[in-house]
Amino acid sequence: MQQFIPQNPDFEQMIVEKMKENHFLNHLGFKTSSIQAGLIEGSLKIEEYHKQQVGFLHGGVTATLVDLVAGYACFTLVQKEQLVVTAEMKISYLNPGLGSIAYCKGYVIKAGQKLYFAEAEIFTENNNNLTLIAKGSGTYMVM
Amino acid sequence: MQQFIPQNPDFEQMIVEKMKENHFLNHLGFKTSSIQAGLIEGSLKIEEYHKQQVGFLHGGVTATLVDLVAGYACFTLVQKEQLVVTAEMKISYLNPGLGSIAYCKGYVIKAGQKLYFAEAEIFTENNNNLTLIAKGSGTYMVM
Amino acid sequence: MQQFIPQNPDFEQMIVEKMKENHFLNHLGFKTSSIQAGLIEGSLKIEEYHKQQVGFLHGGVTATLVDLVAGYACFTLVQKEQLVVTAEMKISYLNPGLGSIAYCKGYVIKAGQKLYFAEAEIFTENNNNLTLIAKGSGTYMVM
Amino acid sequence: MQQFIPQNPDFEQMIVEKMKENHFLNHLGFKTSSIQAGLIEGSLKIEEYHKQQVGFLHGGVTATLVDLVAGYACFTLVQKEQLVVTAEMKISYLNPGLGSIAYCKGYVIKAGQKLYFAEAEIFTENNNNLTLIAKGSGTYMVM
Repeated sequence: MQQFIPQNPDFEQMIVEKMKENHFLNHLGFKTSSIQAGLIEGSLKIEEYHKQQVGFLHGGVTATLVDLVAGYACFTLVQKEQLVVTAEMKISYLNPGLGSIAYCKGYVIKAGQKLYFAEAEIFTENNNNLTLIAKGSGTYMVM
Repeated sequence: MQQFIPQNPDFEQMIVEKMKENHFLNHLGFKTSSIQAGLIEGSLKIEEYHKQQVGFLHGGVTATLVDLVAGYACFTLVQKEQLVVTAEMKISYLNPGLGSIAYCKGYVIKAGQKLYFAEAEIFTENNNNLTLIAKGSGTYMVM
Repeated sequence: MQQFIPQNPDFEQMIVEKMKENHFLNHLGFKTSSIQAGLIEGSLKIEEYHKQQVGFLHGGVTATLVDLVAGYACFTLVQKEQLVVTAEMKISYLNPGLGSIAYCKGYVIKAGQKLYFAEAEIFTENNNNLTLIAKGSGTYMVM
Repeated sequence: MQQFIPQNPDFEQMIVEKMKENHFLNHLGFKTSSIQAGLIEGSLKIEEYHKQQVGFLHGGVTATLVDLVAGYACFTLVQKEQLVVTAEMKISYLNPGLGSIAYCKGYVIKAGQKLYFAEAEIFTENNNNLTLIAKGSGTYMVM
């Protein structure tokens, strides 16, 4: 994992506050466990309403988790007055989302002046096994 | 829009029933307005909890809408006993998701034997104007 | 197809000149047939060296064609002193690249201040039939 | 990097032979340096004709390198009589392709029964520094 130097020394507090105001994040129940420069980790307790018809985690929830951790990972690196918006993201669904908790890691792979690139990995825990269920990559614009 | 010949004559009823069992679809409040061979249209009344911190539709909700309409569009074309799973999808976020209703269209662009390719367009209505806020493309595997 | 207003009245001449200096474009033998605001069309006579081991057009050539027509379509819309660079692109391979000519169309779907989004369609001609072999989408940054 | 068990014990020889017949690979001058189960490494000496108008490696060449190493990485894992075709790929262009040699690594991240997922990293060497210029991800269908 690459080392990044944050431009905003208070980035951790800023992320915590931004997340408090993010309605959909809070509605789903996403919890952050680690906020570092260029890296966000967190988890989601999987409820019945997060699932699709077969009982797996819905791909839309997985996509949301990718967007949350990859996007906020970029957010840790911008200047105080800057914002980050998602230009695009791709999610590869590697395995069915089976389990009771989803663990999520988002990390920046390139921090440019105007564009950031980040990736995300989503795992589910099932019978004490962690399975990588999705890998995501996104492009983020600094505003 | 390409014309497709459905392999399951009861595809419309099948989609309606599959959607009834899709927990996350129903939790979000997605409503289908049209089910045709290779095409799904629908809408979402945008609630406060669907938004991110700036008040726009959350990118994860938009991604979910892409997955729903593109995935079910593929589902209209498979045989009775077959399923469709998302292999991957990409979403380009063209404009901020501002408005009170999201309109969604998903359509198949290639129906192969094992793989389907579909696209989706997500619009929001704001002051009687429709804006294309996102375009998606996905790969779907027939099982 | 959306209508765009070019910021550089001499965009056609500018594209012609940029293409003359593009080594890989000329090496492959790509020929432009139409340069409009937000739209590029062209073709490639498929030679033996453009193919992979099974005799189809190589996916890398197809990706190159996507990048050329989608990227130059964005280029038609920027100001005189501006450049466009590809941030990312995705190519869906819908059908095998069988035939003697590839026809290519790239078009802008959103022209923002800093970011452009464009798509491309690649067809091959085989026995007087045109087949859509690939669909691409990309994000382009104005510099 | 995950460990994979090849289904074809002669996969290395098979890859060497498939590559000999790949016209575009040989035309560009790609050289393989390592063939392992689920992993391909190689390089390209960057010539003038590989470049775009500004003198950087053309994004189409980069996309081709992604497709080559990610696709052949999947190919190492299939059964003797099976083939692999690219369903889709995405390339993120992180840095300008400046330098005289491109180093390429492709690796499988999930080997399913019908679908494989792989990623690729493309570096260029410039003044003894290696720069990650592109990251790719693709979906590959076993036939």
